[in-house]
Amino acid sequence: MSDSSVFSKGLAGIVADATSISQVQGEVGRLIYRGISIEELANQSTFEECSFFSLYGHLPSKSELNQFTLEMKTQRNLPKQALSIIENAPRTAHPMAILQAVVASLGFDEGCVNLKNEQGNIHKAIQLISKLATAVASISRERRGLALIAPRPDLSHAENFLYMMHGQIPSKEDSRMFDIALILHLDHDFNASTFSARVVASTEAKLSLSISAAIGALSGPLHGGANEKVLEMADSIGEPEKAEQWVRNALTSKTKVMGFGHRVYRTMDPRAKVLRGMLESIVEQKGHDKTYEILRIVHDTMIEELSKTSKDYIWPNVDFWSGAMYRLMKIDSIDFTPIFAVARVSGWCSHIIEMWRDNKIYRPAAQYVGPEDASYIPMEKRS
Amino acid sequence: MSDSSVFSKGLAGIVADATSISQVQGEVGRLIYRGISIEELANQSTFEECSFFSLYGHLPSKSELNQFTLEMKTQRNLPKQALSIIENAPRTAHPMAILQAVVASLGFDEGCVNLKNEQGNIHKAIQLISKLATAVASISRERRGLALIAPRPDLSHAENFLYMMHGQIPSKEDSRMFDIALILHLDHDFNASTFSARVVASTEAKLSLSISAAIGALSGPLHGGANEKVLEMADSIGEPEKAEQWVRNALTSKTKVMGFGHRVYRTMDPRAKVLRGMLESIVEQKGHDKTYEILRIVHDTMIEELSKTSKDYIWPNVDFWSGAMYRLMKIDSIDFTPIFAVARVSGWCSHIIEMWRDNKIYRPAAQYVGPEDASYIPMEKRS
Repeated sequence: MSDSSVFSKGLAGIVADATSISQVQGEVGRLIYRGISIEELANQSTFEECSFFSLYGHLPSKSELNQFTLEMKTQRNLPKQALSIIENAPRTAHPMAILQAVVASLGFDEGCVNLKNEQGNIHKAIQLISKLATAVASISRERRGLALIAPRPDLSHAENFLYMMHGQIPSKEDSRMFDIALILHLDHDFNASTFSARVVASTEAKLSLSISAAIGALSGPLHGGANEKVLEMADSIGEPEKAEQWVRNALTSKTKVMGFGHRVYRTMDPRAKVLRGMLESIVEQKGHDKTYEILRIVHDTMIEELSKTSKDYIWPNVDFWSGAMYRLMKIDSIDFTPIFAVARVSGWCSHIIEMWRDNKIYRPAAQYVGPEDASYIPMEKRS
Repeated sequence: MSDSSVFSKGLAGIVADATSISQVQGEVGRLIYRGISIEELANQSTFEECSFFSLYGHLPSKSELNQFTLEMKTQRNLPKQALSIIENAPRTAHPMAILQAVVASLGFDEGCVNLKNEQGNIHKAIQLISKLATAVASISRERRGLALIAPRPDLSHAENFLYMMHGQIPSKEDSRMFDIALILHLDHDFNASTFSARVVASTEAKLSLSISAAIGALSGPLHGGANEKVLEMADSIGEPEKAEQWVRNALTSKTKVMGFGHRVYRTMDPRAKVLRGMLESIVEQKGHDKTYEILRIVHDTMIEELSKTSKDYIWPNVDFWSGAMYRLMKIDSIDFTPIFAVARVSGWCSHIIEMWRDNKIYRPAAQYVGPEDASYIPMEKRS
């Protein structure tokens, strides 16, 4: 380690590159994609349009969006080798491991990377964004012992995903809610999976292989999976009338309350606000939802209790509400993290394509703290 | 980006963590594993012993080494899902893509990570180190249209790998040479694939899924694959008598001479010295080898020419000689990078296990350079 080097475990405070794709404004609780707030996009845009926006850097014209949407629709089928991985995986396998293998298999046919052919790389990205949704739905059906459902080219990305999951065309409300969830999860600057995608792709590894690596990072419980844990918490609380006391006990005994806190946000996660609003309006229509009711009480009690202390940086994050919403759509909680990947793949691909315009391999230094000058001791002389 | 943050594209000069596994002393051309020079280990140790040393941090006692070697031998078979990926992959698929998918599939059965169970994690590492060799040999045989060969538990790791590649027990010389090549490639501090393994595993992703991601990084032409390119260069030169003039032309026309230069070494790569020595002694026995002869002349001409200039930092690296050696063992050049993984997997696993003792998720910052406050423009109002 030279004298001029900077030590930062976890790379906190190290700016690993410039990007114009998204910005997390943690202090004020704002998230923008290429300058536009996530709330505006959730209200007015679609996952297809946001994916285009993220990849190309401008909102599409009508014909650009039609062309892009059509390309996504025609790319939905999985090749034989991907289907065989899904069909041969044991039922007990975690869907994220299967997804990582399936996406690596999409690299079997992929040619070498040409950094200068950005349009070609965007076509590869569209294929991945499109096929990843089919893979996640197929892995879920196979695990549930159900026949796989072929994608339908007349449906939107969100509609088609729910159709492939359940075998019936979803309601307009469910499709729109799911579409918004995909928009909200599309990108989040240099989170661990996006950073992994960048590190792997910086070697000029193929796009599919870099995305497969990012899926590995998202599979880690410190990154993905928190919404699954929020539902486990809600289920273990069991009944709404037990929720308030459960929170007070948790705070006293320092038990972690799932879905609160974030490494970057120092106030409410803006995605949590949008999700809660949607969830409330559906539950209102429906009359009642036990999971939502438990979470609402956990949330209100947490805010009430924490506002009494100085710990003002603990707020609900996106994972606090998303699980309850997916459950309303009859999605198993083990499929929540794969669904995160269905959205985030657009961000991963956008970051790689942006990085490749001026690529440099990630090669940090290590501080060596082992012995400096040891000798090999032959076996017979070892104590 | 706060004022106190440090910008470093590619993370050059950023120390991403401490390690006691290996150190590259680039200025003096020295590489040590836990304090012992690579030359000493290449001369006296084996891949099994170096893997133990790398994972545990001390040289094994006789019974520890026996136990470790036995465990590696009993773990060589691939599960059904891995074999089916290999058998279903198209012949044209790149072996690194297949390997990445296969290693992800080894995560199908892997339980969640328990950071505190280091011995359990080492057992998982041994499985991966053992099975990765079988996967690489099986992928190679399948591509060549040959029946897969089951591993033999009476052979060492290097012997068994060559046996699974060729269907016959290798000579003592070939086994030892291959064993040394594995030792030389076992670790190299925070190279891009090791860093990828660490980034993915820092989310507490499963070991197999983190190793699968590292394979993705190694597949990139800026990381792995240089020895393949060295042989392409030798083949395009064609004859030893053309080599000297070829180098002079290359230097004049600024054509890249493959296998020279390294991001870290500022003198001869110590691994290149060991490899060249081995290669020379085999060629001497054999009488003559055209690829070696071409490379020797390229090497000598390069050194002669470069010593006339101030570019004293251009020296042959490990990739310059390794391809010629593998070719002498009748290994196809497309299998060189997968073989790199057969060795480096021990380093990847050692780094992850070391990191997990005091884990922190890698989460660098991004410098946002996009628009700050844009608005969504409805489709009908877009120009």
